[in-house]
Amino acid sequence: MKVVVGSPGTWSGLLLRVGQCAFAGASIGVMLSAYGFSNYTAFCYLIASMGLQALWSFGLLCLDIFALKYERDLHNPLLVSLFVVGDWVTATLSLAAACSSAGVTVLFVKDLNFCEKYHQFSCGRFQISIAMAFVTWLLVAKSSLVMFWILASV
Amino acid sequence: MKVVVGSPGTWSGLLLRVGQCAFAGASIGVMLSAYGFSNYTAFCYLIASMGLQALWSFGLLCLDIFALKYERDLHNPLLVSLFVVGDWVTATLSLAAACSSAGVTVLFVKDLNFCEKYHQFSCGRFQISIAMAFVTWLLVAKSSLVMFWILASV
Repeated sequence: MKVVVGSPGTWSGLLLRVGQCAFAGASIGVMLSAYGFSNYTAFCYLIASMGLQALWSFGLLCLDIFALKYERDLHNPLLVSLFVVGDWVTATLSLAAACSSAGVTVLFVKDLNFCEKYHQFSCGRFQISIAMAFVTWLLVAKSSLVMFWILASV
Repeated sequence: MKVVVGSPGTWSGLLLRVGQCAFAGASIGVMLSAYGFSNYTAFCYLIASMGLQALWSFGLLCLDIFALKYERDLHNPLLVSLFVVGDWVTATLSLAAACSSAGVTVLFVKDLNFCEKYHQFSCGRFQISIAMAFVTWLLVAKSSLVMFWILASV
């Protein structure tokens, strides 16, 4: 199996996972600190999806640390298939959550002008949280492409 | 290069492209017939994104017909790389558009109860249009995975 930047069990792969966990966690934190987020389904879904993403990435982060410490090779077809499915599912869910929240935020900011009318509305925090969710998605997309590439080139 | 179901220049590939064009076109048609869609950025973006998707799929549909008629082989690395990039970009844009519109529709239907309060609001048509956009995305996702698989297995 080919070893590319971001492969499982390498330092670059570990860095990607750390980034995913950090941005997903930050996205959840900022959203939780925003006033009234729980009234909107899209924002609750963002938190759920980022939570799942953080859990999945944390699991693979631990596996990467284990592989680096004991010099194990994680490039076997069964394991990589599992990573591919997990990464693709969580990447799709993360993109869906980020986009649906972004759609709602654009509606509030631009179409309905809620942010100018009601100043207690935490529009800025919604936007920061969504931006972080998009960064998380970019990092997971990179991991998923690498995994799929490794699997396809067996 | 491997030939899998949905490869460019095959009958299954042609069918996939016809499905993508049909559902993208239907999604645009239903959204255009809904009252007041143009007041919402997410719905305008859905139309733009489905329009781009329909154009791209129509271009590849014509190429598939050409390849089938004159028995040309479209499996060369340069051409497949082009298909991969185009399919991935349009698939991501389609999913983003479908999800942001879905987020806004869920807000109208569930969180704000607009659909019960204002009966002139075409909630049903928004939902049908978004469902078709999701079907379009599924078909494009199938095409993109096939293209990426073909490219990776060179």
